[in-house]
Amino acid sequence: MKACIAYAPGTVANLVCGFDILGLCLDSPADKMEVRLTDTSEIVIKSADGYPLPEDPALNTAGAPLLEMLADLEKKVGFEILIHKRIKPGSGIGSSAASAAGAVVAANYLLGNPFDKVQLIQYAMAGEKVASGVKHADNVAPCIFGGITLIRSIAPLDIIPLAAPDLYVSVVHPQIEVKTADARAILRQQIPLKNAIKQWGNIAGLVTGILKNDLALISRSLEDHIIEPIRSTLIPGFQQIKNNCKQAGALGGGISGSGPSIFMLSSSRSIAEGVEKIMQQTYTELGIDYHSYVSMINKEGVRIEEVEN
Amino acid sequence: MKACIAYAPGTVANLVCGFDILGLCLDSPADKMEVRLTDTSEIVIKSADGYPLPEDPALNTAGAPLLEMLADLEKKVGFEILIHKRIKPGSGIGSSAASAAGAVVAANYLLGNPFDKVQLIQYAMAGEKVASGVKHADNVAPCIFGGITLIRSIAPLDIIPLAAPDLYVSVVHPQIEVKTADARAILRQQIPLKNAIKQWGNIAGLVTGILKNDLALISRSLEDHIIEPIRSTLIPGFQQIKNNCKQAGALGGGISGSGPSIFMLSSSRSIAEGVEKIMQQTYTELGIDYHSYVSMINKEGVRIEEVEN
Repeated sequence: MKACIAYAPGTVANLVCGFDILGLCLDSPADKMEVRLTDTSEIVIKSADGYPLPEDPALNTAGAPLLEMLADLEKKVGFEILIHKRIKPGSGIGSSAASAAGAVVAANYLLGNPFDKVQLIQYAMAGEKVASGVKHADNVAPCIFGGITLIRSIAPLDIIPLAAPDLYVSVVHPQIEVKTADARAILRQQIPLKNAIKQWGNIAGLVTGILKNDLALISRSLEDHIIEPIRSTLIPGFQQIKNNCKQAGALGGGISGSGPSIFMLSSSRSIAEGVEKIMQQTYTELGIDYHSYVSMINKEGVRIEEVEN
Repeated sequence: MKACIAYAPGTVANLVCGFDILGLCLDSPADKMEVRLTDTSEIVIKSADGYPLPEDPALNTAGAPLLEMLADLEKKVGFEILIHKRIKPGSGIGSSAASAAGAVVAANYLLGNPFDKVQLIQYAMAGEKVASGVKHADNVAPCIFGGITLIRSIAPLDIIPLAAPDLYVSVVHPQIEVKTADARAILRQQIPLKNAIKQWGNIAGLVTGILKNDLALISRSLEDHIIEPIRSTLIPGFQQIKNNCKQAGALGGGISGSGPSIFMLSSSRSIAEGVEKIMQQTYTELGIDYHSYVSMINKEGVRIEEVEN
């Protein structure tokens, strides 16, 4: 039966001041999800390159969403999935979301696109529940819509794709572990109203800058007075990287998701590559292994790359 | 010497979720400021219609900004100001801001427009200090720019005029006193992070709705989980008016400034007039005197109406 490959890229959630509401889609790194439609009512999952992934669909970030999708379908179909895992789990750039989003977009394609993007996001959120215990859309929404995505509300789900300016994203993933649970636990549950007001000024400024393609306004608005001062203490080199990257021309940036990856936005590829060098140099000096990436903001999200009939 | 009349309208600050950062310009009610350029180095202030206003420029919301402006000018000039006070002080629709903004726009016009709008806002803020003890731009910014205005930051001052959709504003001013100081004092200085996140989702949604002219999104985003639940207790009839106006087709609304005025946004004049009727009826039943107004969002702000050479 029909098969396809979905290119499912990483994402940056918690876009500086936009904690829990704004995310963007990278173009690399990306998982590749080979998905084949079957008539077995089963979901069979394999890891392509020896990367250890749970093969029980209910415990797999790509499997759980498809189980939900199958339950809603009236025909007897199943899926075989071969996962090329390229985004390291725990990186903070949406590894689980990429597999979940890639699987549902591919399955939807093979079924003749019966579901819209918001429905696909709802299925993919089941994968996030497997990965982190919480159904959230912070990464699956930008992964499926592409560009920069606003999650205005999670219950009811209200997702608004924003315009995406032609910006380049430099990402560095230092090979240290920051557990999402720890990154959540250190946040204060009460925050000063004064800081919240600064934050919402910046959010309004950031959204306006994005929609009006006003890079100076985006840059001024990329400030986080609430989360970053606390979470950045978990990431060695954070302040140094941020300061030096801004000096090198980056518009701004911060912690990707709940870390440990750091991202910076730049207006050109050459600035973004200079920024990547600063990131690499800093972790080399600190003696911490890393991966780093430069890509444009991906405006289309998960894409179907190869199709076999 | 030259003279002119500035039409200086009321404004709605604290636009629901946009507490301290978003405001809009009404078209009525408005103060009228007759301003004449003189060569005396003095500022002379009079109230046109017997309304008691401080005549000492340093204590007058229109005088204090002009004192600051004169100090920055190198020529020997002065101003005579006749104030037609139409916006009742303490209404919560920017009475002091209208006089301050009207005075500086008129003076700037008479001087040949040496100052830009942001400079005029900075002068006008001196009037807010006289009125409330605090230099804030919540009302003078939308009054001078018109439309809907974002105050991203107050220090440094960063004001971003947004697009203004063709919306109608119904305002009711119940004749009760809510002191700004009291309205400030009852706010909590610490707020739950959970609610702050809801608030910034709504702010991002509201700004997106405004810039994309998406009225349904504006309506969904007009929610305030932080300030309104507390301050609305100071305004009799608030919940009833809000619920009934939304049922009658209003997109949403809330407390204007720090109250006691209530405003509602609607997509047409006929809905806005129906909304005004509900407001009137509610206060009639409660036995509270009121003034009410319907106007479109004013897109140009203070305007020079009559000129005499």
